[in-house]
Amino acid sequence: MEAPYIVIISTGSEITAGRSLDTNSGWMANQLFELGWKVKKFIGLPDDPDLILSELKALKQLAETRPVLVLMTGGLGPTEDDYTLETVLKLSGKKSYSVEKAKIRLQRIYESRGKQYSDILPTVLRQTHVPEDCKTLDNTVGIAVGFVEPIGTDSYLVCMPGVPSEMKEMFTRRLVPELKRIYPRENLVQKTKWLWNIGESLYQKDFVETHRDELFQNVEWGVTANRGYIKCIFQSTDSKPLERIIQKLETQYPKIISDDVFEFVHEHLISEKLTIAVGESCTGGLLGKKLTDFPGSSSYFVGGFLTYSNEMKDSLLGVPSDTLQSFGAVSKETAEAMAKGISEKTKADYCISITGIAGPDGGTEAKPVGTVWIGIKTPDGSVQTHSYIFPGNREGIRENASNTALFLLYQSLKKRNV
Amino acid sequence: MEAPYIVIISTGSEITAGRSLDTNSGWMANQLFELGWKVKKFIGLPDDPDLILSELKALKQLAETRPVLVLMTGGLGPTEDDYTLETVLKLSGKKSYSVEKAKIRLQRIYESRGKQYSDILPTVLRQTHVPEDCKTLDNTVGIAVGFVEPIGTDSYLVCMPGVPSEMKEMFTRRLVPELKRIYPRENLVQKTKWLWNIGESLYQKDFVETHRDELFQNVEWGVTANRGYIKCIFQSTDSKPLERIIQKLETQYPKIISDDVFEFVHEHLISEKLTIAVGESCTGGLLGKKLTDFPGSSSYFVGGFLTYSNEMKDSLLGVPSDTLQSFGAVSKETAEAMAKGISEKTKADYCISITGIAGPDGGTEAKPVGTVWIGIKTPDGSVQTHSYIFPGNREGIRENASNTALFLLYQSLKKRNV
Repeated sequence: MEAPYIVIISTGSEITAGRSLDTNSGWMANQLFELGWKVKKFIGLPDDPDLILSELKALKQLAETRPVLVLMTGGLGPTEDDYTLETVLKLSGKKSYSVEKAKIRLQRIYESRGKQYSDILPTVLRQTHVPEDCKTLDNTVGIAVGFVEPIGTDSYLVCMPGVPSEMKEMFTRRLVPELKRIYPRENLVQKTKWLWNIGESLYQKDFVETHRDELFQNVEWGVTANRGYIKCIFQSTDSKPLERIIQKLETQYPKIISDDVFEFVHEHLISEKLTIAVGESCTGGLLGKKLTDFPGSSSYFVGGFLTYSNEMKDSLLGVPSDTLQSFGAVSKETAEAMAKGISEKTKADYCISITGIAGPDGGTEAKPVGTVWIGIKTPDGSVQTHSYIFPGNREGIRENASNTALFLLYQSLKKRNV
Repeated sequence: MEAPYIVIISTGSEITAGRSLDTNSGWMANQLFELGWKVKKFIGLPDDPDLILSELKALKQLAETRPVLVLMTGGLGPTEDDYTLETVLKLSGKKSYSVEKAKIRLQRIYESRGKQYSDILPTVLRQTHVPEDCKTLDNTVGIAVGFVEPIGTDSYLVCMPGVPSEMKEMFTRRLVPELKRIYPRENLVQKTKWLWNIGESLYQKDFVETHRDELFQNVEWGVTANRGYIKCIFQSTDSKPLERIIQKLETQYPKIISDDVFEFVHEHLISEKLTIAVGESCTGGLLGKKLTDFPGSSSYFVGGFLTYSNEMKDSLLGVPSDTLQSFGAVSKETAEAMAKGISEKTKADYCISITGIAGPDGGTEAKPVGTVWIGIKTPDGSVQTHSYIFPGNREGIRENASNTALFLLYQSLKKRNV
């Protein structure tokens, strides 16, 4: 079967008014890429039934010429401006019915809140309705039921809630198996690698463009760029070209790894019963924030020091004012003294210090904006320091510095596990 | 003249592959709303000249029936997959020419990097090209020139770079005056207010829906939701209904203000030469991070303590273990002792402490997930404490707590200025 022409539609006036960012479409496109599919078009529409209907009609017409898959989110809620069901019924000429399982679930939710079935407003009950003769997609997070409405030969309109947590659960658990059934395809092999301290454009130029003819025949590639690292995905129906790519990558980039640093750090600090403390200057708390993003981080993160001023570096962490004067606040010596100071005050197994120039001001020829020193005291008591010149604006430099500090922590944890 | 039918197009395979989030469209929609215009549709397209051309053709056709304004970003760069100029030339049947001013600017940039004009690659030079007979939009941040191409009676296709910093500057400085000239309209009056510690949906239900008939005749409204606060915008050609709305808002919501808290805090700490230090538990550094987001924050932010564990609350901030045992780490007493401890260690004018339960675990019936105590020591030496139960997930609670701490700081700074 021909690969479907995929269109993602997000409805919601909050999106087209710029009040809220549509993160659903990108998330779905990413998931679809991992299944081996590319999206042809994103569409964002306000809560306007006429605009939505005319868009769906045009797509239904397109489905007369080729397989079309439309993924639409939003408009399934209980408020006045939720028009999705009504619009799809107009498009198909069908009637709707209330899905028994969803009705019972709604009833239980009401009862658990001490309310009765009769309390349920018609607009709330409407969320359990779907068009006749379509595949329903259960909602295990919220109330609104999703559905897959046929719109032509091998063509479907999928409607899902716009609440990201509901959509994601429904997409992964209900929709993906259905899509694999509807559009069967050869088995894809996929490889994922993370490259640290390199940017997306440099990677594209130096790796993808340079080796395109030699390595990328019959291979699809994708890259997600983040501050300090990129995540690279490669797909093929044949595993051999993927192995050649990975081999080449490993020769070209020493900081290539196969783990998600953030998850690895979280899991290994817990499983190895290790503790960590931080001392931050230019990042102002961002590293501590990242170390406490995951629930359960209290088992390893004991605390830290925000030593933004030189006085605090001295008074809180005992960085000698001699060191600060001779070498400057942004120096190997200060990063080292900070790491030692954190260790003394907290006795944590790992102690990480960051000191740098986030800009836009404060740079010099010898220490330009973006210069960052990171110190890391490891459980054996030794302190290593590393220096970087990070690219980007103030925010980019701070993100880069705190992510890279976590990468250094990852490398040390990884060594313990070899 | 009829208001134009506005469509925003973002091109870039990184967008439709979900590798990068399109923030340009929402930003432009927001700006257009402030000018009194609503967007009918967002479109995201991969770097595929056929798809882009067919979309533009359809919009040009629509322009035969009504005024259409298309704002397109992306595809003006120097790489192979930048197709915007080529596509617009196909659409219009025009030729392009190199804008002299832009060419000179590019030449100067090359010379400042020690390179010669002859070093400029043809694809780089292409960025100075625009179609004949159209209004050009200067780029003062990057290289690619933007342009406004007529596509019908009172209808235009605006092409701008996809790099946000270049697009924003071009939009604000070059495009907005042009749009005001092309589509003249009655003078709009606009009022902006911030409401703290209230959510968007509650505001819509309790204020907008409730007072729709009575207050919102001839008034457009918009709201931007954030963690801990919402920004409300009201527009009308008549100032009287706006005044009635503001009056009603002020009776209904005590935490209504006319300032951007983050900017106000930054500016006033600097101008009044005040210093600040923090002590964070559940936010793990997020408050410190926010206080150092702006360049120049080193003039007021001295530093702080991340006292995530009880031991650190005791050893770093001197919170008595008695207090921690009797009242718990999340309590008025602990928040107060933390604020005093910060003050003792740093001597800062303002000292803010945060301690709470970010979840998802750790909640009890008496102290559910979301419970947060904030302590604030003001320059007069007194310490006030405030408690909240913030909604949302772990991330939401932490954002809420740190933003609200800044709101408390704002309120205190504001009082000094009455």
